[in-house]
Amino acid sequence: MKICRYDEGRIGLVEGDTVYDVSSVKDQLPALAWPVPPGDLFIERLGELVPAIQAAKAGAATRRLADVRLLSPVATPSKVIAAPLNYHAHVDESLADAQIHNNVHIAHYEGFKSPVAKFGVFLKSAQSVVGASQGVRIAFPGRRNDHEVELAVVIGKQGKDIKAADAMAYVAGYCIGLDMTVRGTEDRSYRKSADSYTVLGPWLVTADEIADAGNLDFSIEVNGEPRQRANTRDLITGIAELIEVASHVYTLYPGDVIMTGTPEGVNTVQPGDVMHARIEGLGEMDVAVR
Amino acid sequence: MKICRYDEGRIGLVEGDTVYDVSSVKDQLPALAWPVPPGDLFIERLGELVPAIQAAKAGAATRRLADVRLLSPVATPSKVIAAPLNYHAHVDESLADAQIHNNVHIAHYEGFKSPVAKFGVFLKSAQSVVGASQGVRIAFPGRRNDHEVELAVVIGKQGKDIKAADAMAYVAGYCIGLDMTVRGTEDRSYRKSADSYTVLGPWLVTADEIADAGNLDFSIEVNGEPRQRANTRDLITGIAELIEVASHVYTLYPGDVIMTGTPEGVNTVQPGDVMHARIEGLGEMDVAVR
Repeated sequence: MKICRYDEGRIGLVEGDTVYDVSSVKDQLPALAWPVPPGDLFIERLGELVPAIQAAKAGAATRRLADVRLLSPVATPSKVIAAPLNYHAHVDESLADAQIHNNVHIAHYEGFKSPVAKFGVFLKSAQSVVGASQGVRIAFPGRRNDHEVELAVVIGKQGKDIKAADAMAYVAGYCIGLDMTVRGTEDRSYRKSADSYTVLGPWLVTADEIADAGNLDFSIEVNGEPRQRANTRDLITGIAELIEVASHVYTLYPGDVIMTGTPEGVNTVQPGDVMHARIEGLGEMDVAVR
Repeated sequence: MKICRYDEGRIGLVEGDTVYDVSSVKDQLPALAWPVPPGDLFIERLGELVPAIQAAKAGAATRRLADVRLLSPVATPSKVIAAPLNYHAHVDESLADAQIHNNVHIAHYEGFKSPVAKFGVFLKSAQSVVGASQGVRIAFPGRRNDHEVELAVVIGKQGKDIKAADAMAYVAGYCIGLDMTVRGTEDRSYRKSADSYTVLGPWLVTADEIADAGNLDFSIEVNGEPRQRANTRDLITGIAELIEVASHVYTLYPGDVIMTGTPEGVNTVQPGDVMHARIEGLGEMDVAVR
């Protein structure tokens, strides 16, 4: 099932070019009171909501996909976790390019089994998240602001110290993630967390639709020019192991997002550019830069 | 005013050794529905709640401070931001000690006016936050897990691109912060974000009670042994400028926390240790390590 959020926060079931307005399922969510516990309530209840969404399709108002304004499919993630340097060819380009490493973020990982083993995972601000139609606002004009396309994994249930062997049961679904990044000497959690520097979209594809998230072609073009093209089979630290690593540090909550890392071909974007990202089985999206 | 959260989430007004149970003020907060906007609703409404808290004191049940279980004074921060290397003597000890820099986090900042100008600020997981009585659970046994005591600033209202000259008007109050840290090669947002690795307490002191947050003595002892002792006047990047730097990247929301950085004397803690932290004008707290 493909579930989107759109316009002013409506819930849509996406089938082909049609969006079915199934916003009525929000009525099934309980009221909340301060202090609200961590996690995204919609994602937490997704198992119950999926049959309700299917039922709401009958008689639902419809919109053409091209006419709706897509928001992030996860409305209120408590946490966005990301993997650095998780494709070998991106490690190589990072080592080779001083504009990427800035003599601070040196990607060598001798003595460690992987970059993630050396550098861990990192956090992006949960409030940096936007949807495809909201676009990216360049926060650091005059510096190098790059696209990084990657597979984003949405956690479905709370967990701590999850073993890789059990990890895929914690996945609610997937979407395309853009880990927008300004190059420089600052920590990753600064350079990748400006407002709008995490794009999630175009919608959430529930885990049951993806037979093997570790074997998906994906790509990004900017203004029609190919920039990054890879397959998730080349992840150095795979999805299940990333969940193990992350959940050893942080309790994971429903709606937490794990950005799995970007392949080679990172490069700059400017206001006026349009990025077109695609992941096999998930969909594709245009994201404007302003 | 000193406002605490305690036991299972009660709201307390702290005066001397007495906690007045003013939990009834929670009834003034509106109900919420998914998707809940960013920010902590209690902190957002603090201006309205302060007179209600004062009024609720009359006739309130009381507890002895020593008998309550203190939780984080901010229940649901959307974001915890922290400053690296923000006291000169801590920069020096970091450069001198390979157990601190691990050949990755080299503190040199030649060519930049300050460490923050070079390294920016960084994020800690908002779900790593606990209160004094909840204590710290060592997440990385066998590695060096350090205390870092610092002044924590709680943001009171939403802001973006806040100028330093206007910044103090965005401060709701202050508390003691412990930025617990495992030493190693990983990014700060990994090493400082394990569950319980951000201690806030013992309560929130509203900004009106602190004449100059840039001139406060503070210290931490472990099992009675002095470890860190400094004054916030020695911050390299001061509070107002930290708010400017942070809000240039991230929109700040009510309840967001800025950890201002730790002075020299960082050192290891072990399960069974008790940390005793104190900041002039704010209070003091015992925090157990397990």
